[in-house]
Amino acid sequence: MTEVQVAFSVAHAAEQADRALRAIAAEVTARMPLSLARAVEYALQGRGKRLRPVLCCAGYAAVRRGQDIPDAMWRLACALELIHSYSLVHDDLPCMDNDDLRRGRPTAHRVFGAPMAVLAGVALIPAAMGVLDAEAAALGLDGSARGRLVRELARAAGAAGMVGGQWRDLEAESEPVDAVGLERIHREKTGALLAVSLWIGGTAAGATPEELDALSSYGQALGLAFQITDDLLDVEGKPEVTGKSGGRDQALGKSTYPGLYGAARARALAEERVRDAIAALAAAGLDTPALVKIARHVVERQG
Amino acid sequence: MTEVQVAFSVAHAAEQADRALRAIAAEVTARMPLSLARAVEYALQGRGKRLRPVLCCAGYAAVRRGQDIPDAMWRLACALELIHSYSLVHDDLPCMDNDDLRRGRPTAHRVFGAPMAVLAGVALIPAAMGVLDAEAAALGLDGSARGRLVRELARAAGAAGMVGGQWRDLEAESEPVDAVGLERIHREKTGALLAVSLWIGGTAAGATPEELDALSSYGQALGLAFQITDDLLDVEGKPEVTGKSGGRDQALGKSTYPGLYGAARARALAEERVRDAIAALAAAGLDTPALVKIARHVVERQG
Repeated sequence: MTEVQVAFSVAHAAEQADRALRAIAAEVTARMPLSLARAVEYALQGRGKRLRPVLCCAGYAAVRRGQDIPDAMWRLACALELIHSYSLVHDDLPCMDNDDLRRGRPTAHRVFGAPMAVLAGVALIPAAMGVLDAEAAALGLDGSARGRLVRELARAAGAAGMVGGQWRDLEAESEPVDAVGLERIHREKTGALLAVSLWIGGTAAGATPEELDALSSYGQALGLAFQITDDLLDVEGKPEVTGKSGGRDQALGKSTYPGLYGAARARALAEERVRDAIAALAAAGLDTPALVKIARHVVERQG
Repeated sequence: MTEVQVAFSVAHAAEQADRALRAIAAEVTARMPLSLARAVEYALQGRGKRLRPVLCCAGYAAVRRGQDIPDAMWRLACALELIHSYSLVHDDLPCMDNDDLRRGRPTAHRVFGAPMAVLAGVALIPAAMGVLDAEAAALGLDGSARGRLVRELARAAGAAGMVGGQWRDLEAESEPVDAVGLERIHREKTGALLAVSLWIGGTAAGATPEELDALSSYGQALGLAFQITDDLLDVEGKPEVTGKSGGRDQALGKSTYPGLYGAARARALAEERVRDAIAALAAAGLDTPALVKIARHVVERQG
């Protein structure tokens, strides 16, 4: 690794993702029934961290060694935010976590009702596939590579990823899990989408299989760090900063990292995993400063 | 058109689709959490008509002029049944139509609870994309054609298709629609998936654009006929034959074809549309006897 001074800023990247997302949101809702379009737009707005599009583009940049990220790449990366937003809307549903507050605003089902929230969420899944495929075409990827992207995103969103993880998470309310079970939940529920965000960015950039492995591992490690931080914020965070109701995990009787390990050891575990993952990125010859910054941001965030 | 005596039987085709579906169901649930796998399998079982896989394979055969339908094609066609089954599970949810009976059995949420039904339904969407892509590869389709298939299925399942139609259908409970509005609901909610079933079958068979247009139009006409028959069965059908609770539409205050047109005119409308669509198939030079049989089956069914 050469010492590179990188101007990468997480906040600036999030703004770029936000700008692309506004354009994508307008396009995917253009032909929806008006009230459905309003619910979908609501689900995509709010002060999101846009972590997944940022990671996707950072994965691209890591492979392209800091080369400029084209507009189509930012637009492509929005597919990840569409899938993430669907999962938030569904996780908040009355029959799931029954949450009232998200991204500092009432949850979608509180504003539009549960049926609309279910449909707005589901509508985002095929919309994401469409965005991914179309923007990959705009980047010049061939049909076979585009198929690979869509397939991997579908896998991460499905039963082997987010859906399975959400299910295990719900089960864990009635039957608390041990550390192995908890890591599995979060590997599926959070890690799968983070890992595929980086994998998609890397694939769009023409990464080697070794580079893709390193990016995916970093995504999984970051997912764990993210989840531990979430657990800590649920206990220690301020709702006016996190934008979520606090103390939910305890109220639902969920196993958490601070609950299983204590706060200090949980945090140390997250940092260790991320450190290892970054070492693996460097070993694969990737350009890591942006990914290091994102990891620090994830662990140190207050909301 | 030459006069061909076709041995095609809707019941036999449904059995072949059922056999393929059992294999696909076992594969897609293999790596799911056990309880989620049970809910997904439940959603795929029951005495379904398997109309969409049958149409998909009939579309293939119509283009290939009665040539044998390969195993991979039956498996590919199951992707349509996965999407259809997701929509049934979600439409039955307490927050949607709140139905207790489906395919002669308790609805999924009655057996597994609403959270599991939401997740099992959503899990079927990416699973369908995966099956479609993998089996299209097994049939020898290139990456670009496979991408087209996945993209069109996503479009039919999404806000421009089933999700949008379901939303308009829910809205119609509080604000009854006229004939134009009703047709739009069913074009999106039912017609989009039927049309894309035929389109996918035709595309897998290497159809020309003209053939694909004729197949899609037939699918849309069949969707209308299907819906009119459904409306009539809701009024006149016996729950022990239809496998659904009867009189739901009236209870929910929904606009229906018999309600808007009267039973006789509604049925005549369905028959007229299907006749026109079949004429268009013949004009495109397609092999139509199986599609004629399916149309007759759809209109004359008792459940």
